[in-house]
This record gives sequence, C-alpha cells and structure tokens, in this order.
Amino acid sequence: MRVVVPYAAAEPKTRLADALSADERSAFAEAMLADVLAAVRATGRDPEILATEPVETDAPVVVDPRPLTGAVNAVLAATDDPVAVVMADLALATPDALARLFDAEGEVVLAPGRGGGTNALVARADDFRVDYHGTSYLDHRAAAREVGADATVVDSHRLATDVDERGDLAEVLIHGGSAAGERTPDGAASGDPRETSRARSWLRRAGFALADEAGRTTVERGEAPSRP
Amino acid sequence: MRVVVPYAAAEPKTRLADALSADERSAFAEAMLADVLAAVRATGRDPEILATEPVETDAPVVVDPRPLTGAVNAVLAATDDPVAVVMADLALATPDALARLFDAEGEVVLAPGRGGGTNALVARADDFRVDYHGTSYLDHRAAAREVGADATVVDSHRLATDVDERGDLAEVLIHGGSAAGERTPDGAASGDPRETSRARSWLRRAGFALADEAGRTTVERGEAPSRP
Repeated sequence: MRVVVPYAAAEPKTRLADALSADERSAFAEAMLADVLAAVRATGRDPEILATEPVETDAPVVVDPRPLTGAVNAVLAATDDPVAVVMADLALATPDALARLFDAEGEVVLAPGRGGGTNALVARADDFRVDYHGTSYLDHRAAAREVGADATVVDSHRLATDVDERGDLAEVLIHGGSAAGERTPDGAASGDPRETSRARSWLRRAGFALADEAGRTTVERGEAPSRP
Repeated sequence: MRVVVPYAAAEPKTRLADALSADERSAFAEAMLADVLAAVRATGRDPEILATEPVETDAPVVVDPRPLTGAVNAVLAATDDPVAVVMADLALATPDALARLFDAEGEVVLAPGRGGGTNALVARADDFRVDYHGTSYLDHRAAAREVGADATVVDSHRLATDVDERGDLAEVLIHGGSAAGERTPDGAASGDPRETSRARSWLRRAGFALADEAGRTTVERGEAPSRP
C-alpha cells in the first residue's frame, strides 16, 4: 500500500493567520508534516509526499501543482495498488491511530475530520476518486457506494483533528505526542512516555500555553522561551 | 459496572443560546439524553441518570443538586464497583464507541473531549475522584497516576464530540445515528442503515441543515418542516 501525504508547500495554514505569522505558519506546518511522516514510518510503511512545489525533506516527493482533489486523483488513477491518503496537518496522529486506518477492512476506509472533511482514507477500489470540496466525508461515502463499496469508517479523535484554526492548537498542546503514561486500550505502553511531538514542542517554544475559556480549553500566547 | 449519565435538567445547553431558544435547548438536550441512554442499553448495560432535579424518563434517576464534580464523586465514594460516567450530550455516541470505552482495560479509562474535557470515563480504582473544571482530561490523567493507575485513553471522535456550541450541531447532522451503509472496521454492519438519531431528527425538524463555510462545514437554519 502506498501512503501519500499531500502537502501545500506555499503559504500553508492561512487560517492560522490570527495566531502565527507567515513564516511561523510555514515552520509549524513543516513540524506537523514531520510528525505525520514519523507516525506513518512507525507503522512500518514508507510515506511519500505529494507537494504543490518542491520541498526539502527525507521522504520521496511527487510535485503536482494542481489543487488537492486533482493531484490525489492523478495518484489514484496511476496505480492499481491500494493507496492511503493522510493529510499533513494531522498533528495528533499516532502510529496506533494510523494502524487502525491502514489495517481496517474495506474497499474504501474513511477517517472523518471534524466539520465533515476527510482527514485520511484508504482506497482499495480501483475506480474510487476523491473530491475534497464541501462536506467531503459524506461525498466520499456516496462515491464509495457508486463503485460498489460501503465505506468503512475509523472513529478516531486523533485522525479527526486537522489543525486549521487557532482553537485547534489546544488539541496539539493537550494530545501532541505520547503523553506521559498513556496506554492503549489493550494495555500496551504507547511509545516513549517522555515523547512529545515536534508540533507541540514548536508551539511551546513559540510561547503558546493552554488557557481556560468559557468551558473549553483554548490557547494563549505569552513570551516565547526561545525563538521557534 | 454501573453506567451513570449526568444530566443538568435545568436550563441545559446555555452555550447553544445563539442557535436555540430555551425551550428548544431543553427539548434538544432531552433528545441527546435519549440517544445516549439507547446507545448504552445497546451495549447490554443499564444506564442510570444522575440529575440535578427530577426528570421524566424510563431510566432510574438519582437526584443530586450539587455541581457535576461533587455529584459524580458522591457516586464514586458510595460504591466499590466499577463506575462509568458518560455525558448526556454525546449525541454521536454509538454502541460500538461505548463498547470500546467499557471494554478497555485499565483502572482508569478516559475518553477525552475536544478542548480538553473528559466526555466519558470508567473508574475501577476505588480512590479515583473526578474534577471536571478546567482541562479535566489532563487533570484526570494526573489523578489516575496519584492512585497508582496509568489512565488508558480511548481515541474516539464520537466520544470526543460533546455538543455544546452551534458549530457542534454540524457533527450531529453529519454523524448522528448509523449513517447509511456505515460499517465498522472489522467489517460488521453497524446498526440499521436507516437509523438516524433522535438528536439529528430533532435538528432536521427544527430546520437545520449543513452549510459550507470557509473550509469547515457548519449549520444554517431554514424554515422548519414541522415544529420540533
């Protein structure tokens, strides 16, 4: 199975403009990408990046300047092998969560994002094509039915959390990396308890901390302990 | 294992005031409660309600007017049996998602909510106590360590989605009930494909529909097809 990680290299994460400068958004997006690549590799698979322009990284890069939907469909059309598509801003993705996606049975496997998006998927049906506009999770379920497949759905908070907006940064601070003492439901230890994700470390260095606000934890930015 | 569903019967869901009137918030909260009770029962367990005042329902009700933390801790202190605490506004909860919680190994099992809350938990450690203020997910992990338990974490988008704010309503419209053709990752059919949740039906009757907005699906309210 190929594992493709689409990455918008130019001006990434524009909806974080109220929290981060353009240069900071690029650096933070790179940190999230590195976390996603590491989590994929920890499942025993080799990720490849599908980028809008060349990027410097240690993974193979396919450059396709087209918008996301067209670029992903070109990958799907070019192979008969199963393809997984994992978004580069899934900063909470762990090897366990990704393994649930990769190992799920089904011709089409979907990990819905909060707000109706499709944050990750596996396509084993040759004719399945994506359309990331609108409420793509529902559209992808319909597209799966059209090729004779009932979509399997992976119920994961980690995979449902794409980091697009300021409010999403709290999720990275809370869940980024294997938090101390976390165990998976089968009782196994889940990674190095001291491990923290690159994205979480980056936010900490940039001065972000958790803040309580009207019933839901958000973030506040203080003095940066060091330049991120 | 006891399964306790806390329910704030008086003036529920105040943060939905920009979307629903006070009477509507009560009716919607009751629909979500009924969905949660039905999902718990479908796992083979008998839920009991922990309410701030008497409520008319078909489940046993314990009335405790204290705030959430004190009322839950009174339940925990009164029994040596394992106790599950499942919030009444988990409108996306399915029997499968709840079974992952109930069946997970661990002295303390936590299902984090978006924004750092604790949407559901199982306490098998006698000395474990809750504190729902602030980022309770992190506090409950620390509290588990204090009683010698490493918390097990259930990674579920359905359990992470408590319905507090207008934006959360989109999740109910997208995921409420077993959507047509949904299958679980092990390939089993997940419920009646025609099934929709009471909360989702209520929102539909009240005129809510999905709307695309700046990259994330939200809701809009049109003319109600019937009074909810």
